[in-house]
Amino acid sequence: MHERGPRRGRVVALAGGVGGARLIDGLAAVLPPEKLTAVVNTGDDFEHLNLYVAPDLDTVMYTLAGLAHPERGWGLADESFHALAMVERYGGQTWFQLGDRDLATHLHRTHLLRAGLRLTTVTERLCRALGVAHRVVPMADRPRRTMIETAGGRMLAFQDWLVRERAAPPVLGLSWQGTCEPAPEVLDAILEADLVIICPSNPYVSIDPILGLHRVRWALAGRKVIAVSPIVHGHAVKGPLAAMIESLAGRAPSAAAIAAHYGELLSGIVVESGDEADLELPALGTATVMGARDGRIRLAHDVLGFAETLS
Amino acid sequence: MHERGPRRGRVVALAGGVGGARLIDGLAAVLPPEKLTAVVNTGDDFEHLNLYVAPDLDTVMYTLAGLAHPERGWGLADESFHALAMVERYGGQTWFQLGDRDLATHLHRTHLLRAGLRLTTVTERLCRALGVAHRVVPMADRPRRTMIETAGGRMLAFQDWLVRERAAPPVLGLSWQGTCEPAPEVLDAILEADLVIICPSNPYVSIDPILGLHRVRWALAGRKVIAVSPIVHGHAVKGPLAAMIESLAGRAPSAAAIAAHYGELLSGIVVESGDEADLELPALGTATVMGARDGRIRLAHDVLGFAETLS
Repeated sequence: MHERGPRRGRVVALAGGVGGARLIDGLAAVLPPEKLTAVVNTGDDFEHLNLYVAPDLDTVMYTLAGLAHPERGWGLADESFHALAMVERYGGQTWFQLGDRDLATHLHRTHLLRAGLRLTTVTERLCRALGVAHRVVPMADRPRRTMIETAGGRMLAFQDWLVRERAAPPVLGLSWQGTCEPAPEVLDAILEADLVIICPSNPYVSIDPILGLHRVRWALAGRKVIAVSPIVHGHAVKGPLAAMIESLAGRAPSAAAIAAHYGELLSGIVVESGDEADLELPALGTATVMGARDGRIRLAHDVLGFAETLS
Repeated sequence: MHERGPRRGRVVALAGGVGGARLIDGLAAVLPPEKLTAVVNTGDDFEHLNLYVAPDLDTVMYTLAGLAHPERGWGLADESFHALAMVERYGGQTWFQLGDRDLATHLHRTHLLRAGLRLTTVTERLCRALGVAHRVVPMADRPRRTMIETAGGRMLAFQDWLVRERAAPPVLGLSWQGTCEPAPEVLDAILEADLVIICPSNPYVSIDPILGLHRVRWALAGRKVIAVSPIVHGHAVKGPLAAMIESLAGRAPSAAAIAAHYGELLSGIVVESGDEADLELPALGTATVMGARDGRIRLAHDVLGFAETLS
């Protein structure tokens, strides 16, 4: 059921949550399973109620399985919250929304991890069970936690900052706790890739955690790498990115700021039509805001077509 | 809202699951909170999907909270099973039924235990949150697991035998793994009790785990102890007790077999009317099968009234 056309090479897509998941969904409609590997940020992962929760992996998996909630940036479309209501009755933690079916993902994942399986293997099993044919690989098997530095040197784990504190405290710095080792499959996939797509995810907290892993920048060097800008007409499509560019890069949010952030790494960039100004690298202007499936597929085509124009 | 009448002393009720929970519910309607302590079997507790599950504690708690399923011997009346259906989709373990709201109990309990709280304290908090005024105390703070010996020396953890194998393998012996120390509150309560009621629970797997704890038999010695027979006209009201009496005691199931099992411990026994034959201790024959609340309260009155006739 994949499109006929010029023979495509192998593609690796680096991604965080919603924006990344939607582009990967588009790519998965265009590329056969053996041609696409999604490498997903796990810097947002955390332990909650003794469950291992992997928000970005789940968003990518649910989106590829066609189960993701169409508007919310997390969780399942067909979902109930009976367990969470009961946790609330017990006076337990309810700041992180856990649906009943979503809870099963965390329970089963945690169970398999405690049984000794790698996160990569666990992710593969979960995806297979949900009928996801394309490969979804966590950036690392062991925890690598994104830490947010806020005023007064206060350090917050990512979900505490994003969800519990609603991304309100200004971000003064970022650091990572945990492993520097990528999952072996990450380097394997990049080293075999004809094209690496940096999805329209937050560069600081979705992509940099991947880029900061040992040998990932080395593996990417000299390879064809295209970013899709998550900044559209000076605004972030979703999430706290615009304010982070202002506080961390000291400049106004723009596609050019994204290009500058990735620097030498990029062979080209895909931006929203009209955002091509001040770009000093090959750029494609197109419609980058994805909603329903057809928009995702169209953008996937645009990105792959643009890649073919680059030497 | 408690009945006027002769001043009641302090009562301790030893209990397992459904039958015990229902009699305690009746006692709780008759006795004020400071006069009743339920000491509950935790020999059935187990780790499932990394959750600490305490079936008997939950049955007693849900029953006292008015939330228990009216017919099933477990879980909540108002329950859904969305998480379990999703666990099944992942190919995970579904032999033990976990409702969505029930799951919250296990999640919150496990969370508090991992935070370092004693099971006694955790149970108190859960009960308080559900509006249970009477004291529910687990028999022990640390695990003490009932192990079932079946043919060929095969040992099964209790829930594996009862639920996963549907109590089919004949029980050739019982043993316990884990602590011998009762929760401190257990001995405190027994030593202050004017009356100890052994609820109509399975003597082998619900009551013996409590009686086998260090100093519990010592604390009970010389105290007024009344058992309510879980055998009615030669049959177990619920569960696998009848077959266990046959295989473990080598005799037909009867109220007399229950009396013989507890032996010297008992000051008297309450049995179903017509089951008084062959009893060599003070006995009250009455209607012992409890369904709705009024039956539980009536039996509680009968037991307390009978106790007053004993010196």
